[in-house]
Amino acid sequence: MFLAIVSCKDKVNTSRANEVVSGQGHPKLILTKQGVLDIKKALGTVPIFDASLSATKAEVDAEIEEGIDVPVPKDLSGGYTHERHKRNFLMLQKAGVLFQILDNDKYAIYVRDMLMAYAKLYPTLPVHPQTRSYARGKLFWQCLNDSNWLVYTAQAYDCVYEWLSEKDRNILENDLFIPFAKFISEGNPQFFNRVHNHSTWGNVAVGMLALVIDNDELLENALIGLKVDNLKAGMKDNDGGLIQVEGQKLGFYGNLDEPFSPDGYYNEGPYYQRYAMYPFLIFAQALQNVKPELKVLEYKDGVLLKAVNALINLTDANGNFFPLNDGQKGMSYYTDALVSAVDIAYYYGGKNPELLSIAKKQNKVVLDDTGLSVAMGVKAGLELPFQKKSINLSDGKNGDEGGVGVLRSHGLELVYKYASQGSSHGHYDKLSFSLYENGNEVIQDYGLSRFVNIEQKGGGNYLKENKTWAKQTIAHNTLSVNGQNHFKGKFEIGSKHHSELYFYNDEQPNVQIISATEDNAYPGTKMLRTFALVKDGDFEKPFVIDLLKVKSLTKNQYDLPYYYLGHIMKTNFEYNSFSQLKPLGKNNGYQHLWNEALGKPTEDYTVFSWKNNNLFYTLTTTSSKADQLILARIGANDPEYNLRKDPSFILRRKDVKNTTFASVIESHGSYSPVSELALNAYSHLSSLKIILDNEDYTAIELITKSNKSKVFILSNKDNSKDKNHNIKIGDKNYNWIGAYYYR
Amino acid sequence: MFLAIVSCKDKVNTSRANEVVSGQGHPKLILTKQGVLDIKKALGTVPIFDASLSATKAEVDAEIEEGIDVPVPKDLSGGYTHERHKRNFLMLQKAGVLFQILDNDKYAIYVRDMLMAYAKLYPTLPVHPQTRSYARGKLFWQCLNDSNWLVYTAQAYDCVYEWLSEKDRNILENDLFIPFAKFISEGNPQFFNRVHNHSTWGNVAVGMLALVIDNDELLENALIGLKVDNLKAGMKDNDGGLIQVEGQKLGFYGNLDEPFSPDGYYNEGPYYQRYAMYPFLIFAQALQNVKPELKVLEYKDGVLLKAVNALINLTDANGNFFPLNDGQKGMSYYTDALVSAVDIAYYYGGKNPELLSIAKKQNKVVLDDTGLSVAMGVKAGLELPFQKKSINLSDGKNGDEGGVGVLRSHGLELVYKYASQGSSHGHYDKLSFSLYENGNEVIQDYGLSRFVNIEQKGGGNYLKENKTWAKQTIAHNTLSVNGQNHFKGKFEIGSKHHSELYFYNDEQPNVQIISATEDNAYPGTKMLRTFALVKDGDFEKPFVIDLLKVKSLTKNQYDLPYYYLGHIMKTNFEYNSFSQLKPLGKNNGYQHLWNEALGKPTEDYTVFSWKNNNLFYTLTTTSSKADQLILARIGANDPEYNLRKDPSFILRRKDVKNTTFASVIESHGSYSPVSELALNAYSHLSSLKIILDNEDYTAIELITKSNKSKVFILSNKDNSKDKNHNIKIGDKNYNWIGAYYYR
Ligand SMILES: [Ca+2]
Ligand SMILES: [Ca+2]
Ligand SMILES: [Ca+2]
Ligand SMILES: [Mg+2]
Ligand SMILES: [Mg+2]
Ligand SMILES: [Mg+2]
Ligand SMILES: [Mg+2]
Repeated sequence: MFLAIVSCKDKVNTSRANEVVSGQGHPKLILTKQGVLDIKKALGTVPIFDASLSATKAEVDAEIEEGIDVPVPKDLSGGYTHERHKRNFLMLQKAGVLFQILDNDKYAIYVRDMLMAYAKLYPTLPVHPQTRSYARGKLFWQCLNDSNWLVYTAQAYDCVYEWLSEKDRNILENDLFIPFAKFISEGNPQFFNRVHNHSTWGNVAVGMLALVIDNDELLENALIGLKVDNLKAGMKDNDGGLIQVEGQKLGFYGNLDEPFSPDGYYNEGPYYQRYAMYPFLIFAQALQNVKPELKVLEYKDGVLLKAVNALINLTDANGNFFPLNDGQKGMSYYTDALVSAVDIAYYYGGKNPELLSIAKKQNKVVLDDTGLSVAMGVKAGLELPFQKKSINLSDGKNGDEGGVGVLRSHGLELVYKYASQGSSHGHYDKLSFSLYENGNEVIQDYGLSRFVNIEQKGGGNYLKENKTWAKQTIAHNTLSVNGQNHFKGKFEIGSKHHSELYFYNDEQPNVQIISATEDNAYPGTKMLRTFALVKDGDFEKPFVIDLLKVKSLTKNQYDLPYYYLGHIMKTNFEYNSFSQLKPLGKNNGYQHLWNEALGKPTEDYTVFSWKNNNLFYTLTTTSSKADQLILARIGANDPEYNLRKDPSFILRRKDVKNTTFASVIESHGSYSPVSELALNAYSHLSSLKIILDNEDYTAIELITKSNKSKVFILSNKDNSKDKNHNIKIGDKNYNWIGAYYYR
Repeated sequence: MFLAIVSCKDKVNTSRANEVVSGQGHPKLILTKQGVLDIKKALGTVPIFDASLSATKAEVDAEIEEGIDVPVPKDLSGGYTHERHKRNFLMLQKAGVLFQILDNDKYAIYVRDMLMAYAKLYPTLPVHPQTRSYARGKLFWQCLNDSNWLVYTAQAYDCVYEWLSEKDRNILENDLFIPFAKFISEGNPQFFNRVHNHSTWGNVAVGMLALVIDNDELLENALIGLKVDNLKAGMKDNDGGLIQVEGQKLGFYGNLDEPFSPDGYYNEGPYYQRYAMYPFLIFAQALQNVKPELKVLEYKDGVLLKAVNALINLTDANGNFFPLNDGQKGMSYYTDALVSAVDIAYYYGGKNPELLSIAKKQNKVVLDDTGLSVAMGVKAGLELPFQKKSINLSDGKNGDEGGVGVLRSHGLELVYKYASQGSSHGHYDKLSFSLYENGNEVIQDYGLSRFVNIEQKGGGNYLKENKTWAKQTIAHNTLSVNGQNHFKGKFEIGSKHHSELYFYNDEQPNVQIISATEDNAYPGTKMLRTFALVKDGDFEKPFVIDLLKVKSLTKNQYDLPYYYLGHIMKTNFEYNSFSQLKPLGKNNGYQHLWNEALGKPTEDYTVFSWKNNNLFYTLTTTSSKADQLILARIGANDPEYNLRKDPSFILRRKDVKNTTFASVIESHGSYSPVSELALNAYSHLSSLKIILDNEDYTAIELITKSNKSKVFILSNKDNSKDKNHNIKIGDKNYNWIGAYYYR
């Protein structure tokens, strides 16, 4: 079936024209015979490659010195046996590479001896004693980690294949590798036969081994899944994720098809995409080497290379991934998975010199042809700065299930999420946003509630607050209606829907804009939320317009939080701080918010300003006298101190059907604790009002302190770029082309 | 009187032997005729000097372009007229220097025109309309700022003195400078005739002018104070500080005598010392130039140069001053006052090459002989790293009023405060400590409650929470007895007492130790608190032993807080989190603490661990079943959001007379959110117990997880280094020399 995608070989490997070695034999998977020759020739002349090699050598040498330990599996992640087996597979892969590059038998001996120890242990193992997983492994508590093991050890095996005796190879394949591959596939179809980052690892593990040992049956299972799995419809994993959806394509191709949009966005978000990229790309590289006729990198219009680009664009100015869905903050493009992603994307993706500037920051390359080529590019000074511009990434297999947009200007980055549910790691956060400046969070996305691999905190696994807090709608910078979650907080409902792009336009650098709708999160209630990032000479820096139009069949309570970070400077409203604190509510995440203070607007516009990282920020929002202004803090009902005690400013509007929240967020000025000077510490605005709000248009007017009027008008029903609009507001005519007006 | 301190001139200025110009005329104060020649000769060849000059030129040129504004005074700090007059004096001083160095008349014209505008305005001014100060200025709301003005403008005047017509000089001196100097001295004796950082500025302002215009009467007032001041005993300033103490030496010498200890520690702490250093040193430099026979830099055994060394040693690894007393966090040796301090200390203090490494970080020098010499030293690559070692600085005029110690080892810095009250900026924090690692706070000192110069926050002035929270005993990492403040929170009582050093010993790098007593904070209760910073091969990093022995005539409630920063990882005790939060108390700072959770020890030792900046920390402390363990958070009764919502872990022991708190604080391991690896995430201790505690000795035993026993014994009554001790604990004999034992 997959063999149908065969094509002419002569297009491939043209870069290896000179000094060709036999295409047969091993290594062939990631390292190749030709690649090893090229590397040996370059040794000592390419700084980043040499440094990476010597770091690897030092690490493996120390490990060999300590001796081999292959303990009987027992622990969860964080515990000794888990961490030992994890370290073992990482060391095996590295030792294999060192054997090839350095021609020193001690590395081959280390690989052989450890693999033989595994071959002795493996047949004796029952499933792992820890019972937490829906798919328990043998070496680890879950098949996911067993699959990691095989992805790496298949590479090690490939590197020592020719050096091993046939007898040893037979032992390893019969007692270890083949039963191992079968256990994580046929033995665990609920793990292997699904579309999920878990199964990607499973598929790739089996596929890598298949390519090394030239096993067509395993390869076919890897690429298109098990033909028979006997799985019941509606089965879920232990995170509540669906195992299978009727009629899904499975295997590596299925996992490549479905979670990636045509723009390369991965439906679980960048944190899991980063984790998933390594198996996708390493297997793509292996297929490129062993089965170039499959042209895997051209699959779905080159989606794998687009995915690397998307992923880099989903980082802040410091290279940290935006923590959408279950994302742990601090994960960045410095992670090893991104080192190989950048190297592979550079080598196979047209040698984009902007990738070299990221490789240079990473200061590390993979020890293969791709890493060598990157290191040589950096050595030659070819790199250009990676220009992260505004970008809109569609979500969904066909790119029609909402998306994620990032507006960028002068150090400010606004991330807007109007995507689909995002699989089992998705949050109930439709139309939520976050704001960054210079790589620092200004209005944060909370991220997950988990301390990955920190055993003291629930074994390093998801904490119960991930469900009760982090996934909840009120935990996000988006609208909660009547204290309820989007989609009633039900994964099954959320998975059926997605927000819709209304329009995206980054053509005018001075007004970049993104707008989306959500009609299903609360049946009967429709939302249209629009963000513009405006650079206007009458303001010091770009500012954000945030326009949220809500239309409902019923009267509701609307809560719109802003999870600002920093210290409150000043408000234009009065509030009462409570002398005792109670939670803001009983469920849906509200039980985790302390209600610190309650205020009421004293003007038609509410001003809330704060300081963060020695920069000043002001949120100005239109308000009515009946609004409540809530100052809250995360941390109630948190008996294990699992949550961060971060603050929130919540706009509450009760007993209305239709309403519009119109806000401006400014970054302005700075404070230096060294010079003790506060510059430009106040908002530029003297007022903000909605001057028109009907079915067709919403218009706001900003008056600056120097008394200049700025008007922003949104066409609520016609998103066409070409439409000519002509309307009168008060006694003034506004005439423009396209979905918005700003002047 | 002060002229008695005359000596031979020929020792001075030997460095200026070649190419001598006439010692007469102007400039002579900070720049000198010879210095200007030297600078002109070096221009274009000394990078840091040239960069500093060109930055200054760009700044002043832009200011000249904008034109002169000398508004009628009106505002508090942060407001326009305040900031304008402040900027004016800074620009005047710089323009004067540029005129001398660049020989361009436009700078002299700018200085003259602005000074003439002041000469026109000044005679018309009443005292400043803002009434907050005990000593209102004319240009500013307080004489302090008026004095700042004169310190800078006297330098500007000196630079253009010879260029000005005699007629203009007469106008400036008669209408502006002399009345100005008289107003801040004779006109405000309550400001001028005291020992306080305020009056230092006043004294120096008058003295600087006196040197420029050669006025002996003003100079004498500056150096030894007004002979007649008619001040009533017991008068206080608006911060509650005493104006005068009977029999005090006054004027510059008085201010130099009293607040500085022989070690150069300034009694208000480093934040105010940094502020005070500039006038002290700039005037010292001026005296050195104009009246070298006074040998001001040799005064009190060279205390001014020692003070610069003390100040640098009172910074963390990033150069930030420890925020003792009313110190604002973030103030550092990058402040301009420290640029001139470092330059002056280098030039006059034997050209210590370690100072050059700080100058290099500052990347800025003063535009005079001292700055030139520093810039040339850096250019010549003479710098050595500034080695901050452990240091003990005595407090008090004679060095016998307690002190501040800093223990340093492998990136850890423990700051122990056992000083005197610290004048009006002092806190009730006897025997308090703070802990840093790599320049980051681990156990914080709260600092002040003030947003200096941020007008939105109470005009940038001290907030009421400075008194109700920041100064209070419970706000510090020290013992609160019966919920009361040290000295009942009364400045008058606190000012009569100070803690006493028991001993300090940094001779053994593996056990550095400091111990002090406090017998007066709570009459009838005596405390002996000892910190040891121990480097022991059985631990990953140095750890802290914190031993607090309390002896009382009465049964009391003891509260010992640890203001840890970071996220709680794990405890070995059970605690209940409250579903509603109440303040921990009603007054003395307790009203500002939310009582989040209450626990009880489940073992004889309590373990509390947390993560901060991706490092792990564990506090282990001996406990009895009756102890309460309180998890608290700052922020209750804070209606203006003036406080940071930081956490605290409080040990509470009730209804006991004598007790000992024995604790170990470990830094261990690390977490990487990129590799997601947690290394060494647990304490090395498996238990901690007090094995002996009597009048003479306190001994604790630490058992490590690898089952090694470590014993620390403190001699409670004999601090001699030579004393031979021989005691039996259980069936083991301990024999050692000196005040402590560790093995
Ligand atoms: Ca989210
Ligand atoms: Ca960041
Ligand atoms: Ca610091
Ligand atoms: Mg899952
Ligand atoms: Mg989220
Ligand atoms: Mg004061
Ligand atoms: Mg304090």
